[in-house]
Amino acid sequence: MKWVESVPNFSEGRRREVVESIVEEAGQYEKVWIVNWSMDKDHNRSVVTLVGEPEQVINALFDMVKKAVSLIDLRNHSGEHPRMGAADVVPLIPLKNIKTSECKEYADRLAERIGNELRLPVYLYEKSASTPGRKNLATIRKGEFEGFTGKIKDDEWKPDYGPQDSIHPSAGVVAVGVREFLIAYNVNLATDNLEIANRIARMVRHRNGGYRYIKAMGVELKEKGIVQVSMNLTNFKRTSIYRAFEAVKMEAKRYGVPVLGSEIIGLVPLRSLVETVDYYLGLDDFNSNRVIEYQLMDILEKE
Amino acid sequence: MKWVESVPNFSEGRRREVVESIVEEAGQYEKVWIVNWSMDKDHNRSVVTLVGEPEQVINALFDMVKKAVSLIDLRNHSGEHPRMGAADVVPLIPLKNIKTSECKEYADRLAERIGNELRLPVYLYEKSASTPGRKNLATIRKGEFEGFTGKIKDDEWKPDYGPQDSIHPSAGVVAVGVREFLIAYNVNLATDNLEIANRIARMVRHRNGGYRYIKAMGVELKEKGIVQVSMNLTNFKRTSIYRAFEAVKMEAKRYGVPVLGSEIIGLVPLRSLVETVDYYLGLDDFNSNRVIEYQLMDILEKE
Repeated sequence: MKWVESVPNFSEGRRREVVESIVEEAGQYEKVWIVNWSMDKDHNRSVVTLVGEPEQVINALFDMVKKAVSLIDLRNHSGEHPRMGAADVVPLIPLKNIKTSECKEYADRLAERIGNELRLPVYLYEKSASTPGRKNLATIRKGEFEGFTGKIKDDEWKPDYGPQDSIHPSAGVVAVGVREFLIAYNVNLATDNLEIANRIARMVRHRNGGYRYIKAMGVELKEKGIVQVSMNLTNFKRTSIYRAFEAVKMEAKRYGVPVLGSEIIGLVPLRSLVETVDYYLGLDDFNSNRVIEYQLMDILEKE
Repeated sequence: MKWVESVPNFSEGRRREVVESIVEEAGQYEKVWIVNWSMDKDHNRSVVTLVGEPEQVINALFDMVKKAVSLIDLRNHSGEHPRMGAADVVPLIPLKNIKTSECKEYADRLAERIGNELRLPVYLYEKSASTPGRKNLATIRKGEFEGFTGKIKDDEWKPDYGPQDSIHPSAGVVAVGVREFLIAYNVNLATDNLEIANRIARMVRHRNGGYRYIKAMGVELKEKGIVQVSMNLTNFKRTSIYRAFEAVKMEAKRYGVPVLGSEIIGLVPLRSLVETVDYYLGLDDFNSNRVIEYQLMDILEKE
């Protein structure tokens, strides 16, 4: 079977019943499995991880986006995390037995259907981007929901699908596209000083001279009374989790701020854990094939 | 499907064709998969890892033991590793959808068949042991092949199955039983002083007051000109890999000996890696379910 993953982000992290009813939409598909979902009050955002057969996955995604559009109103939305739509971003990731090019066709079909049937402007991003300037999600999202009423009228920011000159009044716009597996990884600092988290974020991220495949920003966790360096590792094969962790720790020393720990959001590929173990235990000649569950997966997949 | 693992050890590490023909015996079973095998000249021993459906696994194991009995003659055998039989030990490990108690029934049936059909005395060990004194493989094996002609006549060492008062003339005796997943884990030291490795081994192992589920000894790696603390972690859920590593590192400091790195032998359960990553990255709320390959395995397994 062909396997894809998707990790749609929805701009709702406080009303559990809303997130649940979005997640439930995927339940009717036989070859779609919700493997994880979580919501965050501070970010006011939820992240769902699903895997399955590509045709059914894009149908499930369409239903989920439709539900989000009907239940989330960005005109009354605030949270730490930048956002431009009720369904903010819908990535498609090739997992097994499928090429990126084929994945892109599925993403295109999903984007077209969202644009036409939900009257929601869609921007293709990352590997699906129609121009180099739209590869980066952060660039597309700049100005956020509030700024998009104006931004969409700019010739440079004509949507790839859907209404061409006005956002959806309550649901804004959405980004859809094929991307590499991305690891969302946050390191918690023993301080409530957001400026320190932001400074460290700038030191480790690519944009300001840090690691090539790290995106980062400082985030306040008000409930916990701490801040975190919130990162996206956009190519875990080249910039590993342990490297991001150690880089933040190293920079934090300068401010006399201890690192409290870290959190991985959603799912990660086994290889990213193997590389972390390799580093800390000084292993060589060890790889995913040596993990019993990987062997079982491989056996079952070939059956 | 029910899944078990077995890691039979055979007393042949030099004649590749012999080991290959033992391994080939498992090839005729549809629901048995060889996931790893290796042979060691110094130890003059080979280790095969197979997984599959329990009924077929015990049949495959019987065929492999039969082949080993026909091809290996312990009267002309020498090697670093202690041994008491051509097929030295045949453990059965519950992997998925099977309880220890059910696994023990399979081990019993295998043991009985080996005893009756191959005329090979069998000792049940670990969780299958008929008396507490037979839990530990090293205790059973004491005296090795050469000593067993006498040992078997001792009332205390009557075999559980097979001939009751004489060993198989060329193939000795064999241990069969259900045990926990065992992790073979070695930490390399930047010294060629075996005494230091032995001292550290004593400090970390259960027998001398160390961690409850660590067995350890010092080993010389002559080719590399270093020594290592060679360990068996007999319950990785209670004594993790990282703990063994850090314990060795801590003791090594005392001798001013740096730790060069470490090696994991054979296969490990995903959980053992997850716990190691948890520790070094200070994660909480992370577990095997968050690994994409684990999810695929789980989905495929339920199909």
